[in-house]
Amino acid sequence: MYDIAVIGSGPAGVSAVLTLKALDKNFIWFSSGSVSKKVEQAHLIKNYPGLPDITGSQLALTFQNHYEGMNIKLMQEVVSGVYVTDGYFTLLAGDKQYEAKCVILCIGVENVKPIEGEEQFVGRGVSYCATCDGFLYKGKTIGVLCTDKKYEHEIEFLADIAKKAYVFPLYSGYEIKSKNAEIVLKAPLKLTGSNRLERVEYKGGGLDIDGMFILKGAVSPATLVHGLAVEGGHIMVKRDLSTNIAGIFAAGDCTGRPYQYVKSAGEGNVAAHSAVEYLAQLKK
Amino acid sequence: MYDIAVIGSGPAGVSAVLTLKALDKNFIWFSSGSVSKKVEQAHLIKNYPGLPDITGSQLALTFQNHYEGMNIKLMQEVVSGVYVTDGYFTLLAGDKQYEAKCVILCIGVENVKPIEGEEQFVGRGVSYCATCDGFLYKGKTIGVLCTDKKYEHEIEFLADIAKKAYVFPLYSGYEIKSKNAEIVLKAPLKLTGSNRLERVEYKGGGLDIDGMFILKGAVSPATLVHGLAVEGGHIMVKRDLSTNIAGIFAAGDCTGRPYQYVKSAGEGNVAAHSAVEYLAQLKK
Repeated sequence: MYDIAVIGSGPAGVSAVLTLKALDKNFIWFSSGSVSKKVEQAHLIKNYPGLPDITGSQLALTFQNHYEGMNIKLMQEVVSGVYVTDGYFTLLAGDKQYEAKCVILCIGVENVKPIEGEEQFVGRGVSYCATCDGFLYKGKTIGVLCTDKKYEHEIEFLADIAKKAYVFPLYSGYEIKSKNAEIVLKAPLKLTGSNRLERVEYKGGGLDIDGMFILKGAVSPATLVHGLAVEGGHIMVKRDLSTNIAGIFAAGDCTGRPYQYVKSAGEGNVAAHSAVEYLAQLKK
Repeated sequence: MYDIAVIGSGPAGVSAVLTLKALDKNFIWFSSGSVSKKVEQAHLIKNYPGLPDITGSQLALTFQNHYEGMNIKLMQEVVSGVYVTDGYFTLLAGDKQYEAKCVILCIGVENVKPIEGEEQFVGRGVSYCATCDGFLYKGKTIGVLCTDKKYEHEIEFLADIAKKAYVFPLYSGYEIKSKNAEIVLKAPLKLTGSNRLERVEYKGGGLDIDGMFILKGAVSPATLVHGLAVEGGHIMVKRDLSTNIAGIFAAGDCTGRPYQYVKSAGEGNVAAHSAVEYLAQLKK
């Protein structure tokens, strides 16, 4: 059992773990990559105080050097679910489970909107984790939506298990090496079914499927944590960055605009302090 | 008339002006010193993302290089009052007045608590500005409370005008060169009077005075801006860092804990964006 789990490695996540480490706290840190992709892609940043005219990739490297210099370890795994258990939280990351007394969500904002019906069929046909749920679809027909080339090995893993895998690549330069895979150059619009997922629909057609895997770096907040209060795609937070669920905090772009590096870094710091205060209250 | 006035040059103030400059806004920036004294004094800072193991004086210099590199000018003047005028604000800085459509307060937290009665007699015997109000006390008896050696020239200016100046230096190594000045090694506890200020009291005694000058780097928020909502010494702000007064925003330590550099820098950024949005609304 960890005291704190931090999810995400943009400026908010990095700031949170630097503060937790400086306070010598017991935490675990997850991210789908080494640093937030959005930071890497930014051009010239003029208003991050103390680092004038820095590019996104320089800032990403500077952040990485900072946390590595403090011996902070990043678990490169996508957290696909956070479950409220009795007094603590269970996190599903890849095919493993982790437990923590509180959680700081630094999950950014989604670039890919959820598909209609996606939330409805989570656990009943919709999965975010190839290694966790893949074997449930042995010999069956599945859809795989993928937003990044780096998940292609998971697509191949799934296609080799399934009888048939309809792959929807939402990126360019795809290379899928599996005889069971069939590329569909359409954007999935809707998932339908009665009790379980039965079909994916797109403009001009649809396909019958037994399951749909959605492989993307970030899961929407409400899908990640059932019952989390969200408004306009942003997690609702108070000034101390607590959410509507006791023990869950949020920081960075996921809490709303402005989408600015130093705003996110500041919130990561505050969320870390609030989490530490929450833990102190738990012990009383 | 400026669009925005920023008061304070700690991490919040620096962050606000960097963002306003990057957005090419029309602003003016005040501070009692080149960078916040508290930043300069900090020992090793481990959790300011991107600047590992930096001392307070290094961080102060890094901030200064950043804003000077963007040709941002800092007015080294203490703002002693912000007055709500019809649709805009008037700022009193030294003996000059400035006008702005909105104000961002990055004034930190007071190290020196207000004296009992201080707020009650502002404008009726209590003054924060030697050059503004000094001549009102020509030939009279005054008290001067001073928190920093750098204001000694103002003490001498006041003592030379007055018949008698009782000086309360709240710092070590004082050197006051005026024959009218008398050092009192007591901490003022209470200001009393009926309509106007008449007396300063301290442990074991008191002195009759016509006026009391309080020379310190920061004025308390409620004294600086009449009607500003304050709780526990902190300015009450919403998530967008607006205050109870439309057009006044606050950022940094003055809005509450944690007193952390990156928290302040993050809030300065958010306050700058909120001020820009406020101005856009004004124009509609």
